[in-house]
Amino acid sequence: MKKTGIDAISFYVPKLFVDLEKLANKRDISYEKLNKGLGLNRMSIPDSDEDTASFAANALLNLINSNNIDPREIGRIYLGTESGLDGSKPTSTYVIEILEEILKEKYGIRCFKNCDVVDLTFACVGAVDALQNCNDWVINGSKRKAIIIASDLAKYELESTGEYTQGAGSVALLISENPSIISLTNNWGVATKSIGDFYKPRRVFNKKQVLRETANLFGKSLSENELEYLYNNTQSEFWSSSNANFELHKEEPIFEGQYSNESYKERIFEALDNFLEHKKVNVYDEWDHFIFHLPYAFHGRRMLVEKWISWLEKNKSIEKLKKEIGSSNDIEAWVKSASKSELYLKFVNSRIAPGEIASSEIGNMYTASIFMSLLSLLNNAYNENIELIDQKIGFISYGSGSKAKVFEGKIENRWKNKIKSSKLFEALSNRKEVDVDLYEDLHKNIIVDPICNLNNIIKLSSIQDGEFTRGLRKYKLS
Amino acid sequence: MKKTGIDAISFYVPKLFVDLEKLANKRDISYEKLNKGLGLNRMSIPDSDEDTASFAANALLNLINSNNIDPREIGRIYLGTESGLDGSKPTSTYVIEILEEILKEKYGIRCFKNCDVVDLTFACVGAVDALQNCNDWVINGSKRKAIIIASDLAKYELESTGEYTQGAGSVALLISENPSIISLTNNWGVATKSIGDFYKPRRVFNKKQVLRETANLFGKSLSENELEYLYNNTQSEFWSSSNANFELHKEEPIFEGQYSNESYKERIFEALDNFLEHKKVNVYDEWDHFIFHLPYAFHGRRMLVEKWISWLEKNKSIEKLKKEIGSSNDIEAWVKSASKSELYLKFVNSRIAPGEIASSEIGNMYTASIFMSLLSLLNNAYNENIELIDQKIGFISYGSGSKAKVFEGKIENRWKNKIKSSKLFEALSNRKEVDVDLYEDLHKNIIVDPICNLNNIIKLSSIQDGEFTRGLRKYKLS
Repeated sequence: MKKTGIDAISFYVPKLFVDLEKLANKRDISYEKLNKGLGLNRMSIPDSDEDTASFAANALLNLINSNNIDPREIGRIYLGTESGLDGSKPTSTYVIEILEEILKEKYGIRCFKNCDVVDLTFACVGAVDALQNCNDWVINGSKRKAIIIASDLAKYELESTGEYTQGAGSVALLISENPSIISLTNNWGVATKSIGDFYKPRRVFNKKQVLRETANLFGKSLSENELEYLYNNTQSEFWSSSNANFELHKEEPIFEGQYSNESYKERIFEALDNFLEHKKVNVYDEWDHFIFHLPYAFHGRRMLVEKWISWLEKNKSIEKLKKEIGSSNDIEAWVKSASKSELYLKFVNSRIAPGEIASSEIGNMYTASIFMSLLSLLNNAYNENIELIDQKIGFISYGSGSKAKVFEGKIENRWKNKIKSSKLFEALSNRKEVDVDLYEDLHKNIIVDPICNLNNIIKLSSIQDGEFTRGLRKYKLS
Repeated sequence: MKKTGIDAISFYVPKLFVDLEKLANKRDISYEKLNKGLGLNRMSIPDSDEDTASFAANALLNLINSNNIDPREIGRIYLGTESGLDGSKPTSTYVIEILEEILKEKYGIRCFKNCDVVDLTFACVGAVDALQNCNDWVINGSKRKAIIIASDLAKYELESTGEYTQGAGSVALLISENPSIISLTNNWGVATKSIGDFYKPRRVFNKKQVLRETANLFGKSLSENELEYLYNNTQSEFWSSSNANFELHKEEPIFEGQYSNESYKERIFEALDNFLEHKKVNVYDEWDHFIFHLPYAFHGRRMLVEKWISWLEKNKSIEKLKKEIGSSNDIEAWVKSASKSELYLKFVNSRIAPGEIASSEIGNMYTASIFMSLLSLLNNAYNENIELIDQKIGFISYGSGSKAKVFEGKIENRWKNKIKSSKLFEALSNRKEVDVDLYEDLHKNIIVDPICNLNNIIKLSSIQDGEFTRGLRKYKLS
């Protein structure tokens, strides 16, 4: 069977960041806890003229330019996102629209004319689904090339418990035969359970109730008749009586952090079991690196401890751990102390930590987090001159709602060649800091003029307002 | 290469309908135009306790029950929709949640534990993308079984030009090796262009502006300071100052009908060309049936005329048409007259019309329309005792925004066996009529108690409202 997998990777991270020590100070909570506990350092913040489509367009343009890809050869662009911009028109169409505009001089008009584009949505795991399907498509043809893009805006309510884990950005991957970076083994483990640990529902408000409440704001008390009359005669598009309810969209999710952590752990363990049903190996021995979906930098290492202990038991090396931390009947306390053991730290430092570095600087990228973690590992190895060829990587993804997917790959011979121009950490250190006040105004959409005016970045140029164009988004390359 | 494709099909259509003659009378427009011109007769209307997930759950339950499917053998459930219920949690998770509840007595808890579920979104073509990807997945394994579900609510503004083309429902398909109904040739043509012919954007309103406008409603004129004070001190969740803007979701799209028709035509012709690049055949000779995405019943026949003329020319049988309708220098008028010719009508009646019957009774089902058209052809042939084995079907799909996909299949030997319990037209004639006033109230979400209380249907039972459950949807089997 032919080799297929990841041939090239690019990314885009917004040029603005918030320092988490300053945010912690403003919120009067312990920075130590965020930094040493969760691995948080900075978080990426989009400018006022950026969104999921512009992130994705930048990642795609970077991928095409850095790898001299002829866009006419790309048969697919599959985009995973949980912060899509429209209920019907996929975010991926906005991406190809601006890219075709930019690329038309070099490749002629409509360079994606016969390219199959679509959006996939399953919280943070949708782009992994895109990867699996594009990889299947490459397997089933000859010399096919597909691109998958993960693009998201992780935005939580100000002062909420999720505020520190915000982030934003996009990663784009070229999937092909004989891949330069990673070949995938085409063994996928999956586990699914419908729960509500994190989701973005419509918030429904009854219009008449809101109208009555609003009248009270102005010191007016409305009779039923007055209310009925006003409701039916406002002549206002906003209050329009064509629907008894408002259905508000909010980027900020409803979520329950602890519940989501538990579900993450349960699903990834179930998906690992499912993976191992197909392929009976000892992943603890086999996998040189563990790449996780990371809602925060240290999430993977936190979630894996119990599994790691069970692997030690299977490998008959649990005695080493017991020698270090002793035994205990209080399982919970013992697992906690195992998580702080030298033995676990050694495991983490060699097999997980290199994939955490970028996350500490960016924050959560939802669908893009797992691929950014891969980029972090690769960039770190490149910078440190560590050879990765033939090393095996286990990928452990999770999407709230909930589904986990586990798969694996092997590092291929030309990985360095494709990573040398990546310069991830340079890009992250060249961002502009925004202070907490400015960040809050950006968060509330009070800021209209963009903060950052660098050239050569794709940004939102307008949201249209004609009868037949209302809400259509236009992008430009600055 | 092994045969893969559609092994079973099921559907769900809401039990309520509106008679289009009555709607036309109320709106004071010509029913003749709707009925003879567009093929419209009735349109399906969801009850107050139905949504995209409940439609899909019913279609899936029907598929499982009618075909004795063991749900634990299903490796995938991919759902195409453009009326999803959440920005992050896929509608497909709600579907498996209620199904697992219903099926647990027979198959144990979590019968979809290792099933891969996800939503795909590209307007009306997303479920075709699901089909292609699941078919690839079946090809790449051994004895794999996948289910794809198309589920949508086509809702337009009251009194808009789209009102007559509303509809709702779901179709579910089992994809497997050695399929009973249709084997797919795995040749797919695609054409893409990002446009705004139909989409569902967020409608953004500035909160302060709305507050000022609303004050005026109550005869209050607010100074800047009063406005600022009120805005920041409402203590109202609705008016919350955490975002300067409201982002309203509306089920009703922004659309431009004529533009969308033109785009449909351009994209399907481009996708046909792309299909024929891979496989040089004469589809006019090869395809016994043409199955379209049908926003209204006669859409396919309307869009195909020019292509049909070009096929006649290639087949050197254009003289037959010229003999019937003569020649003309006025191309547009000539094409129009060709569309009304006996020759075209003969072509339509034998190769397109059987797929239109259900659409006339249901209306637009967005992603599900093309599969409902297939069901219409199959049910009609079964009822009329027409043998279809070995006949070839061309599928022509379109999604606004915009993408067309063309593919083909061949009817397999056991199709009758799998269609005999379908009874599509019986189900459609057993619906309950709602009058136009009641329909309008349902449309506006004024009706809270469901109209229809039949047993054995999956319906929405509640939308939760706890701190961590707000907006979560629960379903039950009545």
